[in-house]
Amino acid sequence: MQESFPCIEELKDLDIRALGENRFDSPFIKRSRRFTEDDSRVLVYSNIRDAHECEQCGRTPPAFEEAGPREKLFFDGKKSVAGIVTCGGLCPGLNDVIRTIVMELYWEYGVTRILGFRHGYEGLSSNRRKEPMTLSPDAVQDIQHQGGTILGTSRGPQDVDDMIDTLRKFKVNMLFVIGGDGTFTGAHELAVRIRELGLKIAVVGLPKTIDNDIYCSERTFGFGTAVEEGRKAIQSAHHEAKAAWNGIGLVKLMGRDSGFIAVHSTLANSDVNFCLIPEVPFTLEGEGGLFARLEDRLKRRQHAVIVVAEGAGQDLIAGEREKDPSGNAIYKDVGLFLKYKIKAHFRDQGIAMTLKYIDPSYMIRSIAANAEDSGFCILLGQNAVHAAMAGKTDMFVGYWNHHFTNVPLEVAVGKWKAVDPLGEYWQSVVSMTD
Amino acid sequence: MQESFPCIEELKDLDIRALGENRFDSPFIKRSRRFTEDDSRVLVYSNIRDAHECEQCGRTPPAFEEAGPREKLFFDGKKSVAGIVTCGGLCPGLNDVIRTIVMELYWEYGVTRILGFRHGYEGLSSNRRKEPMTLSPDAVQDIQHQGGTILGTSRGPQDVDDMIDTLRKFKVNMLFVIGGDGTFTGAHELAVRIRELGLKIAVVGLPKTIDNDIYCSERTFGFGTAVEEGRKAIQSAHHEAKAAWNGIGLVKLMGRDSGFIAVHSTLANSDVNFCLIPEVPFTLEGEGGLFARLEDRLKRRQHAVIVVAEGAGQDLIAGEREKDPSGNAIYKDVGLFLKYKIKAHFRDQGIAMTLKYIDPSYMIRSIAANAEDSGFCILLGQNAVHAAMAGKTDMFVGYWNHHFTNVPLEVAVGKWKAVDPLGEYWQSVVSMTD
Amino acid sequence: MQESFPCIEELKDLDIRALGENRFDSPFIKRSRRFTEDDSRVLVYSNIRDAHECEQCGRTPPAFEEAGPREKLFFDGKKSVAGIVTCGGLCPGLNDVIRTIVMELYWEYGVTRILGFRHGYEGLSSNRRKEPMTLSPDAVQDIQHQGGTILGTSRGPQDVDDMIDTLRKFKVNMLFVIGGDGTFTGAHELAVRIRELGLKIAVVGLPKTIDNDIYCSERTFGFGTAVEEGRKAIQSAHHEAKAAWNGIGLVKLMGRDSGFIAVHSTLANSDVNFCLIPEVPFTLEGEGGLFARLEDRLKRRQHAVIVVAEGAGQDLIAGEREKDPSGNAIYKDVGLFLKYKIKAHFRDQGIAMTLKYIDPSYMIRSIAANAEDSGFCILLGQNAVHAAMAGKTDMFVGYWNHHFTNVPLEVAVGKWKAVDPLGEYWQSVVSMTD
Amino acid sequence: MQESFPCIEELKDLDIRALGENRFDSPFIKRSRRFTEDDSRVLVYSNIRDAHECEQCGRTPPAFEEAGPREKLFFDGKKSVAGIVTCGGLCPGLNDVIRTIVMELYWEYGVTRILGFRHGYEGLSSNRRKEPMTLSPDAVQDIQHQGGTILGTSRGPQDVDDMIDTLRKFKVNMLFVIGGDGTFTGAHELAVRIRELGLKIAVVGLPKTIDNDIYCSERTFGFGTAVEEGRKAIQSAHHEAKAAWNGIGLVKLMGRDSGFIAVHSTLANSDVNFCLIPEVPFTLEGEGGLFARLEDRLKRRQHAVIVVAEGAGQDLIAGEREKDPSGNAIYKDVGLFLKYKIKAHFRDQGIAMTLKYIDPSYMIRSIAANAEDSGFCILLGQNAVHAAMAGKTDMFVGYWNHHFTNVPLEVAVGKWKAVDPLGEYWQSVVSMTD
Repeated sequence: MQESFPCIEELKDLDIRALGENRFDSPFIKRSRRFTEDDSRVLVYSNIRDAHECEQCGRTPPAFEEAGPREKLFFDGKKSVAGIVTCGGLCPGLNDVIRTIVMELYWEYGVTRILGFRHGYEGLSSNRRKEPMTLSPDAVQDIQHQGGTILGTSRGPQDVDDMIDTLRKFKVNMLFVIGGDGTFTGAHELAVRIRELGLKIAVVGLPKTIDNDIYCSERTFGFGTAVEEGRKAIQSAHHEAKAAWNGIGLVKLMGRDSGFIAVHSTLANSDVNFCLIPEVPFTLEGEGGLFARLEDRLKRRQHAVIVVAEGAGQDLIAGEREKDPSGNAIYKDVGLFLKYKIKAHFRDQGIAMTLKYIDPSYMIRSIAANAEDSGFCILLGQNAVHAAMAGKTDMFVGYWNHHFTNVPLEVAVGKWKAVDPLGEYWQSVVSMTD
Repeated sequence: MQESFPCIEELKDLDIRALGENRFDSPFIKRSRRFTEDDSRVLVYSNIRDAHECEQCGRTPPAFEEAGPREKLFFDGKKSVAGIVTCGGLCPGLNDVIRTIVMELYWEYGVTRILGFRHGYEGLSSNRRKEPMTLSPDAVQDIQHQGGTILGTSRGPQDVDDMIDTLRKFKVNMLFVIGGDGTFTGAHELAVRIRELGLKIAVVGLPKTIDNDIYCSERTFGFGTAVEEGRKAIQSAHHEAKAAWNGIGLVKLMGRDSGFIAVHSTLANSDVNFCLIPEVPFTLEGEGGLFARLEDRLKRRQHAVIVVAEGAGQDLIAGEREKDPSGNAIYKDVGLFLKYKIKAHFRDQGIAMTLKYIDPSYMIRSIAANAEDSGFCILLGQNAVHAAMAGKTDMFVGYWNHHFTNVPLEVAVGKWKAVDPLGEYWQSVVSMTD
Repeated sequence: MQESFPCIEELKDLDIRALGENRFDSPFIKRSRRFTEDDSRVLVYSNIRDAHECEQCGRTPPAFEEAGPREKLFFDGKKSVAGIVTCGGLCPGLNDVIRTIVMELYWEYGVTRILGFRHGYEGLSSNRRKEPMTLSPDAVQDIQHQGGTILGTSRGPQDVDDMIDTLRKFKVNMLFVIGGDGTFTGAHELAVRIRELGLKIAVVGLPKTIDNDIYCSERTFGFGTAVEEGRKAIQSAHHEAKAAWNGIGLVKLMGRDSGFIAVHSTLANSDVNFCLIPEVPFTLEGEGGLFARLEDRLKRRQHAVIVVAEGAGQDLIAGEREKDPSGNAIYKDVGLFLKYKIKAHFRDQGIAMTLKYIDPSYMIRSIAANAEDSGFCILLGQNAVHAAMAGKTDMFVGYWNHHFTNVPLEVAVGKWKAVDPLGEYWQSVVSMTD
Repeated sequence: MQESFPCIEELKDLDIRALGENRFDSPFIKRSRRFTEDDSRVLVYSNIRDAHECEQCGRTPPAFEEAGPREKLFFDGKKSVAGIVTCGGLCPGLNDVIRTIVMELYWEYGVTRILGFRHGYEGLSSNRRKEPMTLSPDAVQDIQHQGGTILGTSRGPQDVDDMIDTLRKFKVNMLFVIGGDGTFTGAHELAVRIRELGLKIAVVGLPKTIDNDIYCSERTFGFGTAVEEGRKAIQSAHHEAKAAWNGIGLVKLMGRDSGFIAVHSTLANSDVNFCLIPEVPFTLEGEGGLFARLEDRLKRRQHAVIVVAEGAGQDLIAGEREKDPSGNAIYKDVGLFLKYKIKAHFRDQGIAMTLKYIDPSYMIRSIAANAEDSGFCILLGQNAVHAAMAGKTDMFVGYWNHHFTNVPLEVAVGKWKAVDPLGEYWQSVVSMTD
């Protein structure tokens, strides 16, 4: 599901920062488990031309550090305190990830003191409303069956020094940050400041973006579940549209900067006629505009289904974009916008029609993960624990070319993956729709 | 799920009108199948006091005619033409009902010419946009797996004489009308006018109301499916609410005049704290008002789930009610109203909170029926065919005290079932919520 | 879903036994809640002829006591100790029922000491393996999302006096017994012996039978869920059958003495060609036998789906029936029997075919209840608590003619509901299959 | 989900055979769509060491041809006839693939004559039972909602020359073969013989293996759906196990030679205690044997869940393996074997226990694809059409390092992917279970 490949200029330094020398033997040694060598790398470009181009211009092709258990650890599990925090919007799999981190720390590395900070970064600030909860295997045993996050979440950053004070107060020496681009920006700042202060606290990110738009990771959890549920909403829109004369079913799906959910839900459901995503601009009026294409479709078939990603068509909506507390742009509601514009257009044209608008976003992001995502969360969580125990910091765990990877936070913040309008996914959508 | 029992004054005449003398032997005779006697009745009041009160004041307790196959038929299947029409909003099970009517007419009674009029009553008018489709067992074989209705639907009545002209043009002598209260009003007018004209066309209704509010029927199809899906929406709202500090999940469910879906979804999901239905008025401000109770709940638990039926709290929303083309009152959107009012209230109070609003209506009504509803549709459809073949008209098929019943349309039009605020369902809700 | 109506001779005495005079005011009085009068009755026969026949022969028509909260209680909630036990096979909704009993006792009647006896009646014996668990609202808050029963279950009776000793030891004065016919036999013996000993312990049953075959109750929990899942298994069998040349899909569903699950799953799924239930004997060989009908079907359509209830065709399987520890007959596996017999028959006939056998029983009975069943469990559990608090004993809560009822255990034990081969459900199946 | 990487010795020749010179312009040129260059390659080893090792020993690292649309085509769509055949066991997604091939051929390449051969290779033989069906966009419009395959399937090869006669008779010049290893063996023989005869018929395979064990493809369709359903079966087994004293839930999942479904279902469900797969031998008796571990688990927790892949423990079951008509080894039923062995063991030990055995295989493989698999099927089908139109033959479409690939059939037949006992998936299972 990777589309627009990361640009080679942005991948100059893929080395992972370490807190110091690793002096402790991994408890895995006794269990004769295979370790990942610290210099094992996963090529960014698996396409042979790209890789060779790099070599021909005299440099090693870019590659991510491979994730996995290390033979030597920086931390002594028995003396360590771990913290976990979940930030931003809900995403299927959050509880799976929390559960796995706790289980892996506790049973595999002997870390028995694990704290769950409440309601995002706010739980790390001195004016937090709730004290952290103690996470034990018993406490997290069955949480994966619930949607949401048992830790709660919130948007927005907090003062970095204030958060570090909290970490020190609770003697936390490894912090697992589960969140998206905004959250990773905060985690990077935290890691930089910790380094400046000479503290030995690992900061490890686990990418959480239902949109699947984290840079340098082929896949993120929750996305598969979202596509499954998005397909159901489209199915409903299709039945509504077909039952009416000139019926239009309009479904808004998640996707602020990239339209992966819209694209994959469309691929999973052959009833979509128009798929609108941020990466492919469109117009309403004029030849080739949405209105003309809709009129044509209704003339031919008397019903139509439109899927629109929430970030699509923002240029069409007048006015300035604002920012939310996390610094994300607040998007104008393109679903309601299209609903009113389309109705007005057909009323003006004197063409009878019916439009049903479905916005399933909160019903999707709050459910439990499907099997695919649950399994992915377990491997993601385990690799995050491996990294933190090995003293790696200022990084997140990604997935690339069927390997889990350790990626510097700096490489990914402020960027995102997007659907390639010339790539095979979008081209498949084009060939299936209208 | 019956609640407010029909009032005895409204049940004076429960006799079913017949088109004439039944002269044909039922083909079931050869299959030695048991027939329902024409004078078999189902008591309206199964409660012994009510029944006895009637008897003591010198009259027979009211009872519905029992539905079922009759030994003598009015129509000769081989020479008959049947019509089917679906009206009003979508409801899970529409295709199950269409399929069953076709299968029963064709295989059991030998009616081979069956027409599906398109897009509601509009398909019966002379300015219909589409000609009726021919329905055969092959054409309907697998339609029950799809939501919606293969015939299409629309709202609003048509000229009665114009529709009768269409029926005569296509030689239809039995019309199956699948719809709700507004639709039944039209069906009754049609049957009355057919009688005035001395025509021999049976008009048989099949109650379709996802709200389960048809008068004199304990149960209608689609309702069970709606409760199942409503529960999922509530579950999502609960996860959203719990994940935020002072999180409120607000779910609007269907229910224009009666809150059965809201009530049963609440009973099926223990996470609801406030259930608002049309039958039980509520206020926003003041002591005992929704705001005060919400504040109290958030103070105690920091999250809350509200379920509101679409017809609840209409008195709180300023302005006049309008009517849709079917004559149903157009309801102000109580979901959006509450969303804005609650947010404004807490902002005014300076209390931080988050509200997520979920409106799953179009996702619910457009899906295929669950197993319970599918099975019910089959028996409902078969009994409608039995009634029409026996020349019964101006009636619909109901379900009462575990029997299917034939009920005069006149008894039910313009009335509806409602949740009894003193009954056990609402009292259970009261004991479960807040 | 009631079919073979209870025979009037068996309904002579429907009075409910009481432990003594009710001296305590219900806490519901303060909440101005409506009470059910103790002499309120629900007619057994809602069909007007049956009811009148009774009256004409000079006796009151039989009627069940209506369930519901009573104004005067036998027990003082604050001083009471309640026990709950679940017996027999799993059934969707067990945890819903446990949860409701706890919540209703605790919040509505002030009973704070509630014990869950472990693993069926065994948990009430002196050689129990586990001590009872304490049940509080917190402990049961979320259990309804899990299948199974948190109390565990087992089959088989225990010594009555030994169980009474346990109840006395723990000072239990009301015992809720959730189980089927075998379990109710034990509960009745317990209640009789308690009465003989002059003890004041209420024994109230909650019918649990996924087969929906409890006598004198129109409906039981878990059945709707089972039909939903049974339909899925049939769908799979259909796809397997259609994909092969002369493909046969064979599905065994639950139903020891009555075929309700098989019948309703067939009604909910139009792909079934043969439905075999205990109430309707069938043969394999000869004209009209299963083999001949299968051959005919394959000749015409090249695929077939068979649904068989586990208790069907037991007479065809040689050998003696044994009994399990609960005294239920152990049924020979008719699914495997048919699988081998059908394969052998076609091999002998030299007709190529493929048979896929599906037995989903353990996958069905162990899942969480669907919305319909969950809602039903709540009302059932609440009514059981109302009955026990009012000192009613030796009874169970049923559902009849849209009222909940109190029924003497004695009336139902040793009998069961069955599908009526001349009734409308089976006749619908006949008209749909082959 | 790739585990045991293909060995470099087996990847000597990854060149794709072509039927001849490509002389026709692709219709995509007009739509300004991006083409995949014919020399574009996808590295087999994305791990940097492996790739560099190859280079250091003086040879290019092995790489697959990248799939995708080509600018020049071998066939003229308008004059082409395509054939499709589905072979072997059912797998979710078969109808999605059939549908996509038809849609892509018809709408994108102008191939209007498409034949669906019935019931596997048998439909290509001269003694076929059914003539091929004509596949048009209308005929396949909605088939993706059904499980199974509309073409039917069968096992076993047919005479190669006889099949070629059929292809010639129907003027088929491109054949799409959807099947697993046995089917691909047949397809390869067909392609070889076609080449010997100098015919211009493309043979393109689409890998169908629910087990996900096709060599040289990271992923196959149906697998994700199978894991989703496998998880449900495990959940049921868990509830059964927990409800009984010393309860054991035993689930058999698909996986003849590789345990991917068992492994991923275990990762997606944290309730599994023992996962048994073909790749990791186990014993029953003695120290470290299954019996001892089970006894230990029951002593500690009183319940256990076992998941066993159908190909596991075959060495423990006495007797010779037989072959089915496709040449696949017929596996002894390890599920039933373990059921009896475990029961016997505990009976011999005098330890009371209960075992519930669940075999959901036919319920899993016959359902419709989930959203993930449906989307994958579309891209797979489109790429197969691109390959055939470009005259590529004796190949199948794989997926590798987030690219679709063209792989010679010869490379994959007779081999399979397996779970690596030292790899991260199995190690995660080990850390989660017991």
